[in-house]
Amino acid sequence: MQHPWILAAIRSVRPRRGLRLTSCSKLASVKLYTTSPSIARPSPSPTQEAYPANPAVASTMAPKAPKFEIKTPKGTRDWSGPDMVLREKIFKTITDVFKRHGGITIDTPVFELKEILAGKYGEDSKLIYDLADQGGELCSLRYDLTVPFARFLAMNKDVTQIKRYHIAKVYRRDQPAVKKGRMREFYQCDFDIAGVYDPMIPDAEIIRIINEVFESLGWKGKYTIKLNSRKILDGLFQVCGVPDNLIRPISSAVDKLDKMPWADVRKEMVDDKGLAPEAADKIGQYVLLKGKRDLLEQLKKDEALAANPSMQQGFADLDLLFDYLENFGADHTVSFDLSLARGLDYYTGVIYEVVTEGSAPAVPATEEEKQKVAKKKGGKPGDADEDRSDDPTVGIGSVAAGGRYDNLVGMFSGKTQVPCVGISFGIDRIFSIMKASQKQKERKNEVDVFVMAFGGGKDFTGLLKERSQICARLWDAGIKAEFLYKVKPKLQNQFKAAEAGGVPFALILGEDELAQGKAKIKEMGLPEDHPLKEGELISLDNLIEEVKLRIQKKQETDALAAQAEGIHI
Amino acid sequence: MQHPWILAAIRSVRPRRGLRLTSCSKLASVKLYTTSPSIARPSPSPTQEAYPANPAVASTMAPKAPKFEIKTPKGTRDWSGPDMVLREKIFKTITDVFKRHGGITIDTPVFELKEILAGKYGEDSKLIYDLADQGGELCSLRYDLTVPFARFLAMNKDVTQIKRYHIAKVYRRDQPAVKKGRMREFYQCDFDIAGVYDPMIPDAEIIRIINEVFESLGWKGKYTIKLNSRKILDGLFQVCGVPDNLIRPISSAVDKLDKMPWADVRKEMVDDKGLAPEAADKIGQYVLLKGKRDLLEQLKKDEALAANPSMQQGFADLDLLFDYLENFGADHTVSFDLSLARGLDYYTGVIYEVVTEGSAPAVPATEEEKQKVAKKKGGKPGDADEDRSDDPTVGIGSVAAGGRYDNLVGMFSGKTQVPCVGISFGIDRIFSIMKASQKQKERKNEVDVFVMAFGGGKDFTGLLKERSQICARLWDAGIKAEFLYKVKPKLQNQFKAAEAGGVPFALILGEDELAQGKAKIKEMGLPEDHPLKEGELISLDNLIEEVKLRIQKKQETDALAAQAEGIHI
Repeated sequence: MQHPWILAAIRSVRPRRGLRLTSCSKLASVKLYTTSPSIARPSPSPTQEAYPANPAVASTMAPKAPKFEIKTPKGTRDWSGPDMVLREKIFKTITDVFKRHGGITIDTPVFELKEILAGKYGEDSKLIYDLADQGGELCSLRYDLTVPFARFLAMNKDVTQIKRYHIAKVYRRDQPAVKKGRMREFYQCDFDIAGVYDPMIPDAEIIRIINEVFESLGWKGKYTIKLNSRKILDGLFQVCGVPDNLIRPISSAVDKLDKMPWADVRKEMVDDKGLAPEAADKIGQYVLLKGKRDLLEQLKKDEALAANPSMQQGFADLDLLFDYLENFGADHTVSFDLSLARGLDYYTGVIYEVVTEGSAPAVPATEEEKQKVAKKKGGKPGDADEDRSDDPTVGIGSVAAGGRYDNLVGMFSGKTQVPCVGISFGIDRIFSIMKASQKQKERKNEVDVFVMAFGGGKDFTGLLKERSQICARLWDAGIKAEFLYKVKPKLQNQFKAAEAGGVPFALILGEDELAQGKAKIKEMGLPEDHPLKEGELISLDNLIEEVKLRIQKKQETDALAAQAEGIHI
Repeated sequence: MQHPWILAAIRSVRPRRGLRLTSCSKLASVKLYTTSPSIARPSPSPTQEAYPANPAVASTMAPKAPKFEIKTPKGTRDWSGPDMVLREKIFKTITDVFKRHGGITIDTPVFELKEILAGKYGEDSKLIYDLADQGGELCSLRYDLTVPFARFLAMNKDVTQIKRYHIAKVYRRDQPAVKKGRMREFYQCDFDIAGVYDPMIPDAEIIRIINEVFESLGWKGKYTIKLNSRKILDGLFQVCGVPDNLIRPISSAVDKLDKMPWADVRKEMVDDKGLAPEAADKIGQYVLLKGKRDLLEQLKKDEALAANPSMQQGFADLDLLFDYLENFGADHTVSFDLSLARGLDYYTGVIYEVVTEGSAPAVPATEEEKQKVAKKKGGKPGDADEDRSDDPTVGIGSVAAGGRYDNLVGMFSGKTQVPCVGISFGIDRIFSIMKASQKQKERKNEVDVFVMAFGGGKDFTGLLKERSQICARLWDAGIKAEFLYKVKPKLQNQFKAAEAGGVPFALILGEDELAQGKAKIKEMGLPEDHPLKEGELISLDNLIEEVKLRIQKKQETDALAAQAEGIHI
C-alpha cells in the first residue's frame, strides 16, 4: 500500500493537458527586515532635491518600511529582462504558426463561475483556486483553457466551426517545484479545432502544427510526438479482461510508465486497483510496445485485438491518420506508443504528448526512491507549500500534450455536441530549454538609435533641445530612438546607456557638425580596425533615409548570421 | 446631505489611473433551461456516426444538460470574432509606440499577497477581490498595474531605471455598467518611466507618447490632454485657506467638476467636507480656468499665488514641461486645466487625463438627476450587482490618465525611493470608440490562400492528398493557408468557407491542370468585368514565388487604399 501523499505527488508529475512547467525561474524575494548596505540606490530625484516636498502631500504617502516580506505569492514569479524578451519571442513564433493555419484567438475571463469548473477535473479539482465569498456569485480561477473554451462554444451556438488559439495564464494550487518550473500560475498556449469535419483531417493538422512549432523554434527534430488512441487503449483493456469500471483507473496506472518501472505499475494495478494478476500480465505484453505504422500492422494481425469493436475503430482512425500525416510531411517525429494514456477523462480519440531530453525524471519513482525522498523531507510529507525542486523523482515532463475530446462541450450545452481536437504547449518548459541552449545575448529593448550630445567645456549646453527634436523626427518616421534624460550628459554615460540597452546605432550631435547641418552616425560594437569604427557624417536633411538604410542593412546582416547559426527566432 | 450610495456612484464614475471602460460589450449569456429549437447544431461528428461510442468511455462524460445558467461572471465578458481582431490591432499599435520609445515589458502575477495591496487605494480598497482562504498565504487579485510595478521595483533593487510597459487585466468589484464598458475584469495598458533623471524630461516624453498613440490610432488630434500639477493644486488650496487636513478631500471634490456643476461641487465642499464658504468661493475663482502656456503666465502674475512655495515649484515644473513639449512637437493637444485633480493619493507632480467626445456623461449628476435615478432603480440603490448601463449620470470617462508618483516605491522599499511617471490607456474605452467609427470590415483570420479542389462526377476523388501536399508546401514557405476538412468537398462550399474567413486568394486544383503541373489562382471578390475575374493558371513548379508575388501586391494595394481613407491600423 502506497502512502497517499506519494501517490498524489506522482500523479502531479505528469501534467494534465497543458502542463505547468516553468523551470529555471527563481522566486526572487527580498526580506526587508535585513538591511543590504551593499545595494545602494541613488539619492532621491533631483526634482525632490530642488523642491522640498510639500508637507501636506508628503504626510499622506511618507515611506515607511513595511513589516512583511515583499515578494510574489508562492509558486508565482515576475517576468522581466532577457527572460521576458525570450518568452515574447517564443509566443510570437508559436502564434505565427497558429495564424498560418487559420487560427483566430479568443479571450475568456480569468475566473469562471465555480459551477462551470466543478466536476471537470476529477480529483485534481481540489487544486482549483476559489475567490473569497464577498457577496454575489461564487467564482474560481480557471484551471486550464479547455473547459472555458467548451463553455464558450456552448454559449455561442452560432460558432459551430472554429480554429481557435488562446495563450493565457491558468492557476493550480499544486505543490510547487519552482526550480523545475512547476508553478501555481503558469501560461498555457492552446490550439483547438472545433466542429464536425471528415474524420482525422483536423487531428492530422494538429500534429503537423506541433512539428511546425518545434521546427520554427529551431529544435530540428529533437523531440518525439508520442501518439496513441483512447479507442485502442480501451479495446486493449477489454481484450485483456479489465472490467469496464476499472478501465479509467487502469489507464491512469499505465500512464505512469514514463516514470515508474513496469513492476511498480503492475503492483499498483493489482494491489491498489484490484485487477486480476493475469489481466495485468496480459496488459504488460502490449503497453511497452512502441513503433510507427509497422506497430499498427502488427497489432492488426493479433486476432484477439482485431475482433474487438473499439480496437477496430482505433485501427481505422490511425490508418487514416498515418495517411494524412504522410501527405502533410509530418510523420517522421511520431511514435505510436501504447503506454501513453493521458490523465484527463475527457479524451475520446487520439491522444498525444511531446517529449524531449529531460522530460523524464532523473531517477524513476521506485518504492525505494520514494521512501528516501519521504525521509529527507523530515516527516512533513503532506505540506503542499513545500518546494519539491530537489526531489529527483519529479521530472520536467512533456513540452506539449493534447488529444480529441468530442463530448466536453455537451457537458454544458446538453444536446448539441461540438467535437474538438487540440494541443496545449508548455510554454514555461519550452522557455527553460530554449534559455539553456541560447547562444546569442538578447537585446534589452528594441531601440535602434541612441541620440547623443558631444561636447564639453563650460559653454556646452548639452543640446537637449536638439536631441529632443531629432528624436521627435525619428519617432515621427516610426524609428525606435532614445536619448539620455539629462540636460548636460557626459558622452561616456550616453555610450554606456546605449550599450546597456544593446542599441545598435549612436547618432552623435556636436555643435560644429550641427552648424553644417550634419551629425555623426556610428554603429556600436565594431572592431577596432573596422573602417567605419569612427562613424560617418550624414546630412540631417536626409536623416530618415540615412538611418533607415543602416538599420535595414544591419537587420539583414543579423538575419544572415542567425541563419548561419541555425537560430530560427 | 447626499445619500451615501449616490456619492459612491459618482466617485466611481471618474476612473482611477487606468480606467475600467469597455463599453458596447454585451454580456452574452445563454439560459439553458429554455430550449431554442431555432438554433440547430449539425448532427454529431461523422467520426461518431461511423463508430458507435464505446460504452466504457461514453458513460464517463455523457452529456447532461447542466442545472445552472451557462455564462461568464457578472461584469466580465469573452472576447472573440471581429471585436478580438480590432482589440489585438489596438494592442499592437500601442505596443509599437511603447517600443519606439525604448519600452520593455514585464509580467507580474494576477494575484498579489493581500498585504501588498492593502492601504494603497484609499476607500476603493473595498473593491479588491480576495482569494478564498484555502490554507497558506492570503492573496488578492491586482487592482491596477501600478502597485505591482512599485512592488517589483522595491524587490529588484538592481533595477534603478526602467521604461516599462505592461498590458494586462485588472480586477475591481465595482458596480458594473456593461453597455458603457464599466467591467469588473478589464485591461490596463501602462507605460511608466522609473528612475532619477533631470526634472520634467520623462514627464514630457510621456505626453509625447500619448500624442503618438492617438495619432497612430488615427484620431487626428480629436482628443485633449488635460494637464495639471499636484504642486499647483496644493499651493492653490493653501492660498485659498484650505487647512492641510482638508487638502485631499477638497481635491476629490474639485475632480468632479467634469460631471457636476460648480454649485454642486461647492455645496459638497462646504456642507459635506466642512470647508469655510469664503475658501470655497476663492477656489471657484481659479478651478474653472483652462488654457495653455498663457494661463501659466497669468497665474504667475497673481501675487498671492506667486508667493506660495508649492506654487513656485509647480510653476517651475510647468515652465520646463512646456519648453520640452515644444521641442517634442507635442504641445498642441495639451490643455492646462485647473479643475483636473485625479483621485488617487499617490500622485506628487504633474497629472493628466485624456478626454474625447463622449467622455462626459449625457446628463450632469445634479441633485435632481441623482434623485430621478434613485427613484427609477426602485428602492434598491445599494445593489452592487445591478447594471448601471442606463444611468445617464454615468459617463464613459477618460481614455487615458496618469501622472508622477515619486513616493509609492518607498512604501515597499523603506528608505530607497524610485521616482516614477506614467500613463495608463483605457483600452476598452478606446476599443469602443474605434469600433463605432470603423469603416472597413475586419478579416476573420489572417489566411492568405484557400486551397480548393475542382471536379465532379462519380470519379472525383476530392484531391485531398493533393490539397494537403500543396498546403504543406505553402506552410513550409511560411504562407498562411487553409483547405476544407472534407474528403470530397463541393466547390461552392469551399468558396463559401474562403469568403467567410475573408481569405483573399483561392488556389484551385483540378485533375486536368494537375496533370500539366498547373493550378489556377484567383483573387476573391473581383468585380464581374475584371480581366482576372476567372483567375490565372500558374505552374506548380513556381508555386511559392507566384503566390508570394500576388500576396505582396495585394498587401500594397490594400495599404494604399487604407492610407487614402486615413485609416492608420
